[in-house]
Amino acid sequence: MIKVGIIGGSGYTGSELLRLLFNHPEIEINAVTSRKWAGKEIWKLHKFLKGFYNLKFVTPSINNLEDCNIVFTAVPHGESMKYVPKLLEVGIKVIDLSADYRLKKETYEKVYGKRHESYIKAAYGLPEIFKNDVKKSNLVANPGCYPTGAILAIAPLVKAEAVDSVYFDCKSGITGAGAKATDFTHYPNLHEGITPYKVVTHRHYPEILEILEKLNPNSKIINVHFTPHVFPGSRGILTTAYIKLTRNYNEKELYNLYEKFYANCPFIRIQEEIKLSWVRGSNFCDIAIYSKEDKTVICSAIDNLVKGASGQAIQNMNIMLGFDEKLGLYNPPLFP
Amino acid sequence: MIKVGIIGGSGYTGSELLRLLFNHPEIEINAVTSRKWAGKEIWKLHKFLKGFYNLKFVTPSINNLEDCNIVFTAVPHGESMKYVPKLLEVGIKVIDLSADYRLKKETYEKVYGKRHESYIKAAYGLPEIFKNDVKKSNLVANPGCYPTGAILAIAPLVKAEAVDSVYFDCKSGITGAGAKATDFTHYPNLHEGITPYKVVTHRHYPEILEILEKLNPNSKIINVHFTPHVFPGSRGILTTAYIKLTRNYNEKELYNLYEKFYANCPFIRIQEEIKLSWVRGSNFCDIAIYSKEDKTVICSAIDNLVKGASGQAIQNMNIMLGFDEKLGLYNPPLFP
Amino acid sequence: MIKVGIIGGSGYTGSELLRLLFNHPEIEINAVTSRKWAGKEIWKLHKFLKGFYNLKFVTPSINNLEDCNIVFTAVPHGESMKYVPKLLEVGIKVIDLSADYRLKKETYEKVYGKRHESYIKAAYGLPEIFKNDVKKSNLVANPGCYPTGAILAIAPLVKAEAVDSVYFDCKSGITGAGAKATDFTHYPNLHEGITPYKVVTHRHYPEILEILEKLNPNSKIINVHFTPHVFPGSRGILTTAYIKLTRNYNEKELYNLYEKFYANCPFIRIQEEIKLSWVRGSNFCDIAIYSKEDKTVICSAIDNLVKGASGQAIQNMNIMLGFDEKLGLYNPPLFP
Amino acid sequence: MIKVGIIGGSGYTGSELLRLLFNHPEIEINAVTSRKWAGKEIWKLHKFLKGFYNLKFVTPSINNLEDCNIVFTAVPHGESMKYVPKLLEVGIKVIDLSADYRLKKETYEKVYGKRHESYIKAAYGLPEIFKNDVKKSNLVANPGCYPTGAILAIAPLVKAEAVDSVYFDCKSGITGAGAKATDFTHYPNLHEGITPYKVVTHRHYPEILEILEKLNPNSKIINVHFTPHVFPGSRGILTTAYIKLTRNYNEKELYNLYEKFYANCPFIRIQEEIKLSWVRGSNFCDIAIYSKEDKTVICSAIDNLVKGASGQAIQNMNIMLGFDEKLGLYNPPLFP
Repeated sequence: MIKVGIIGGSGYTGSELLRLLFNHPEIEINAVTSRKWAGKEIWKLHKFLKGFYNLKFVTPSINNLEDCNIVFTAVPHGESMKYVPKLLEVGIKVIDLSADYRLKKETYEKVYGKRHESYIKAAYGLPEIFKNDVKKSNLVANPGCYPTGAILAIAPLVKAEAVDSVYFDCKSGITGAGAKATDFTHYPNLHEGITPYKVVTHRHYPEILEILEKLNPNSKIINVHFTPHVFPGSRGILTTAYIKLTRNYNEKELYNLYEKFYANCPFIRIQEEIKLSWVRGSNFCDIAIYSKEDKTVICSAIDNLVKGASGQAIQNMNIMLGFDEKLGLYNPPLFP
Repeated sequence: MIKVGIIGGSGYTGSELLRLLFNHPEIEINAVTSRKWAGKEIWKLHKFLKGFYNLKFVTPSINNLEDCNIVFTAVPHGESMKYVPKLLEVGIKVIDLSADYRLKKETYEKVYGKRHESYIKAAYGLPEIFKNDVKKSNLVANPGCYPTGAILAIAPLVKAEAVDSVYFDCKSGITGAGAKATDFTHYPNLHEGITPYKVVTHRHYPEILEILEKLNPNSKIINVHFTPHVFPGSRGILTTAYIKLTRNYNEKELYNLYEKFYANCPFIRIQEEIKLSWVRGSNFCDIAIYSKEDKTVICSAIDNLVKGASGQAIQNMNIMLGFDEKLGLYNPPLFP
Repeated sequence: MIKVGIIGGSGYTGSELLRLLFNHPEIEINAVTSRKWAGKEIWKLHKFLKGFYNLKFVTPSINNLEDCNIVFTAVPHGESMKYVPKLLEVGIKVIDLSADYRLKKETYEKVYGKRHESYIKAAYGLPEIFKNDVKKSNLVANPGCYPTGAILAIAPLVKAEAVDSVYFDCKSGITGAGAKATDFTHYPNLHEGITPYKVVTHRHYPEILEILEKLNPNSKIINVHFTPHVFPGSRGILTTAYIKLTRNYNEKELYNLYEKFYANCPFIRIQEEIKLSWVRGSNFCDIAIYSKEDKTVICSAIDNLVKGASGQAIQNMNIMLGFDEKLGLYNPPLFP
Repeated sequence: MIKVGIIGGSGYTGSELLRLLFNHPEIEINAVTSRKWAGKEIWKLHKFLKGFYNLKFVTPSINNLEDCNIVFTAVPHGESMKYVPKLLEVGIKVIDLSADYRLKKETYEKVYGKRHESYIKAAYGLPEIFKNDVKKSNLVANPGCYPTGAILAIAPLVKAEAVDSVYFDCKSGITGAGAKATDFTHYPNLHEGITPYKVVTHRHYPEILEILEKLNPNSKIINVHFTPHVFPGSRGILTTAYIKLTRNYNEKELYNLYEKFYANCPFIRIQEEIKLSWVRGSNFCDIAIYSKEDKTVICSAIDNLVKGASGQAIQNMNIMLGFDEKLGLYNPPLFP
C-alpha cells in the first residue's frame, strides 16, 4: 500500500481528498495535518466522515510526514512553498493544490505579489494535456479550478491553431471560496442571485494565459477574456467559452476534433447538452459543442472540488505512481 | 381613474401586473381575462393576492374589455395579434407583452415561423431609449426580457459608435420559462446548477440585433453574440456583456458616458458592484462597469418579471397616459 | 409629517424598516444611527436602496434623535435598554425590536443571563391580540419572529381554552440569523439541507410561554414544545403547530373559530394551503387549518423580517399614532 | 457474478440503483426495463451515467429478466404486483421498492384504494430491525422513505416501551415526488419556501403505524402524528420526532440506549448535531438526540433516494445474498 499524507486537512480540498481516497484500493492515509485541529479526530471536524477514519490530525512537520510515499499540499498559496522542497528532498512525491508551482516564477511573483522562496519547476497537472510531464515528475502543480474548466473547453481548438479570440464566462459554486465564512459566502448575499466578482482582475487569468501558450506556443490567440461569477449552489463550474475561430468548422467537424483529441481521456465526456448536476461529485469534465454560422460556443462542466481540485490531484497521483488514472476515481456522479 | 384591462391574467406577467398595479394611484383594474379560469375569483388562482382583488376572471372578448382605457396583452406570441387590432379600433390603447409587435414584419415571420395576421407598427417600449415613440403611440410593444437587459447594458456605447463586437452572456431565473410545469422547470433538474439553453438559437437574438440597429443605424457593430442560461433562482436576469471597443475608454470615461446617457432615467442605477437581489421585485436596471487595459465588461441586472416585463409595461403605460413614469412603480427592491 | 428615527440601521431589521417606510404617506425618516457607518450615506451600505435616501448614518445619541416623534430600536438585546428610558423621558415614543422589553423582568434576566438596567413595562406589540395595549402605550416591545408565527397560529384555540398541548415545529429562513457572516450562515453549510438548531434551548421558548399565559391566564395548556430549524431560503417562517385539543372540533368549526377571532385583522389570511412565497415581503400571516379525526395541525406563514419584525413594528407605529394599521403596509407579497 | 435486473429503470430510484450498483464487486446489471425507452441506451436517458453502462432498456417481461438472480422492482404501487409473483415462481429473488408488499393486505387495500391482485407475505426491509426476516426471505418489501427516517428515529424507545406519543415532523427534498414534472415540482413554486403537503392524509402514515406495532406489539404508544413537508432541495429527509416518554431518561441514558440498540448497524451514526448534507448520496441514517427536562427530541437524517430507497434496497440485497451488508455501499457522503 502506498502511504499518503495530506498537508492542510481542514479545508474543502482536504476533506474532499479524504472522501475520494477512502475507496482507493492501493493507498492508505498515513497523516493528515492541521495546525488548528492537531490532536483531534478527523471526523470530529468533518462529521460527514464519521465512521471512515480514526486518524487524528497532526501538526504539519516533516517528522509527521516522513513515512509517506506521496503528499498532497492542500494549503493556501504562499504556504505550500514552505513544505514542498523539504518533502522532495527526503524523496516524497508531491502534488501541490495551491498556486505556488503552477506558473513561471516571474508570473507568480507578479500575480501573487510576493517573492517565491523556493521555486522548483513542476509538471502542470492537467493530465488530458500534459500526462507525460506528470508521469515523469516528482512535483505536480495541480491546476486552478477555473483554468481546468476553461482550458479543457478549448484545448483541441488551440492545438489546431484555430482560435482567434476567446471569452470565458465562468460560473462557480460557492465552495470555490473556501470553508471560511465571509460576507461573500453569507447565505442571504448569494441566494436567488448570480454575481460577477473580481471582474478583469482574477488571479486565474494569468494562469489560463500561460498554460494556453504552453499548450501551443504557435497558437495565434489574440485575445483571451475571463470573468468569474458565483451562482447559488455549492459545487461546480460551468464555463461558457465564446470562440472566434480563424477558420470555419461546422458542428460535426468540431465534434470530431474534440472526440479525437480526447479519445484516450476517460474523464472527458462530449455531451449533447450539459448540466452541472451530471458531473457533481465526480472527476468528469463534460463538454458540449454549439455552432451555427459564425457562432461557436463550447461549454464545459466540472465539479470544482473534484476535477477542479482533489479529484484531479488523485488522477495525477495515479499517473505519477504508474496506476491506471481511473483507479478509485471512476464513479458515477450524484444526480439529481 | 383610468380603467385597465389585462388579457391573459393567469400567467406570471399577468399576476405581476396585478401585484404592481395594486398601489398605482391613478388606475383601477377593470377586467382580467383567462379562458381557463373565467368565472373564478382572481385570488383563488393567485393565492398570494388574497385580500387584494375581488374581481373574477372573464373570457377574453372585446365586449369584456370595451370599458377599458388601456389594455395589457399578457399572452403568448401569436395570440396577441388576435386582439390588438380590435382593441385599437375601438380606441383602447394597448401595451403588448408578447413578441407580436416588437420586430419588423419580415423578421417576425422568419423568427417565429408564422404569418403575421395583423401587422401594425408599434413603438418599442424601452423608455430609456425610445420614450418619445412611446409617448406618441397607441400601441407599444413591450421588449423581451433578455433584450431589455442586453440593450440597456450597451446602449450608451452603441450610441457613441464605440462597439466593435459584443458577447452577451445572460443568466435568467426560471420564471422566464413561464408558469407551466415542464421537464425544464422540474426542481431537481435545476437546483445546484446553471445551464445554457437554446445556445445560438434563442429568439431574443434577432430582437437584440434589430433594436441595436434601430438605436443607431450608423453603428459599426460587427458581431453580436448572445447565450441565455438559467440559474437556480426564481427572478432576475444578469447580463454580462463583453465588449470590444473601437476606441479606448478608461473606467472613468465609461462611467461618465453612462451617467450622462442615463441622466434622466430614474430606473437606471450605475452601481460599483451588482447583485440580482438588489433589484428584486423592482423596476430598476442596475449597471456596473468594469474596465482594465483592453478589457471592457458591462453588467446589468434586472428583475425579469418587472423591468423585463410587467414593470416596464407599467412604465410605458405611465408615459402613454402622460403620468410621471415613476408613478406607482418607484418602490425599493426586496433585499435580502 | 411624523418624524421617525431608527437606532441601528445597519442590520436586516433596520434596512427593512427603511424599505417599508419609504412609501408610508405620513412619515419621514429623520435619523438613522450606526456606530460603525456614521457619516456614510445609507445607500452606500444598503446598495439596494440607491436612489431612495440621501440621509447619512449618524452616531446613536439622544442629540441626534431629539427631533423625532417616534423611534425604532433595531439593535441587539442588551443594547436597547441603554436608549429606551432616555427617549421616553424626552417624550419620544419607542418601538423596540429587541428582546429587552418583551418579558417580565425576572424572566428576561433569567433567559438572557444579565441584569436589566432599566426595566419599564411595555405593551407587547402583537396587534391582532393586544391592540388596545399598543394604542395606549408609549413603549411597544415588538415580538420575536418565532413567537409571532407560533402565537398567531394557536391564539384562537388558546382563547377558547381548547389546547391541551402543542408542539411548534418552526422553519426559518436564514436572515433570522442576522446580517453578520458566521459558520452557521456560510452558504455550503446550509444549501440543500434543513437543520434544527438550539433544540430545547432557544430563547424564544420562554417568550412563547409567557405570552400564551398573558393571552389567557385560564388556559389549561399542559405542554408547549418548540423547535426552530433553518431551511435554505432567505426569508420566511413556517410554523407547523401540532395541537392536542381538550375537546373536539371538526375542520369547519376550527375554520369558523379562526375567521371570527381574526375578523378585524387585515393582515391575517386563512388559506386552504400555505406557502412562504405567498407572504414574502409582506406583513401577512397566512394560516392553514388541517384536521382529521383526533389530529389537528395549524400552519402559519410569515415573512420573518416583515410580520416577524419590521413590518409588525410599523403596524404598531400606525396604531400608536392613531393611523389605520394598514397605512403604507398593505402591499401584495412578492410571488413567485 | 450475481445477475441483477431492474424493472422500472427510468425513474429516480431506478437511476439511483444504477449509480450505486456500478461499483458493487459481486454483481452485474443484466437487464433494465422501461416501457417508454425500450431499445434506447440507458445513458441516453440518464446522461450523468454516460461512460458507465452500454446496456439498452428492454421491455418489462419475464423473458427479458429470466437470466437474473435477483430483481429490483422500481415501479409505482399497483405495478409491482404484476411482476412479483411471476419472478418468484421462476426462482428469482425480489426486492420491491413500491408499496405493494409493505403492508398487511387489508391495510394496503384500504390505504391505496384498490384490490391487491397477488398478495404475498414479504419481509419488511428495514435491516436495522428486521435483518433476520430479510435474510430468510425471497421477497423483501423495501420501506417507504418517510417510514425509514421516522422508525429509525424512535425504534430504540419503542422497543423499550418508553413512548407515550410521538409527533413526526418530516422535511423531504423534492426528488421524493419523482422524476415527472408537475405543478408541485415547478421550480418557482418551491424555491425559497418550505411547504407542508398531504397533512393528516399521507399514505406513509399507516405504514409507520403498522411497522411500529410490528416492532413491538406491546408498545403502549397512544398517539402517532406525521406531517410531511417539502423543502427547497433535491435529496434528503430530516425527521424531527417529538416524543412524550412514559418514563424519564436523561440525555446520557438516551444516548446509551441508542448506541446499544444500533451497535451492529454500520449505517446508523449517532451524531451530536445533524445535517442532511452529511448523509447526502450515502446509505447512512444519522441520528441526533436532544433532551432537557421533559422535552425529548430525536432527529434523523437520511438521503431519501439512498437509505430511503435504492441504497436500502441494495443493503437488503446484500443480506439476502449472504454478503456483508456494507458491500459496495459503504462510501462517504458528498459534503458540501
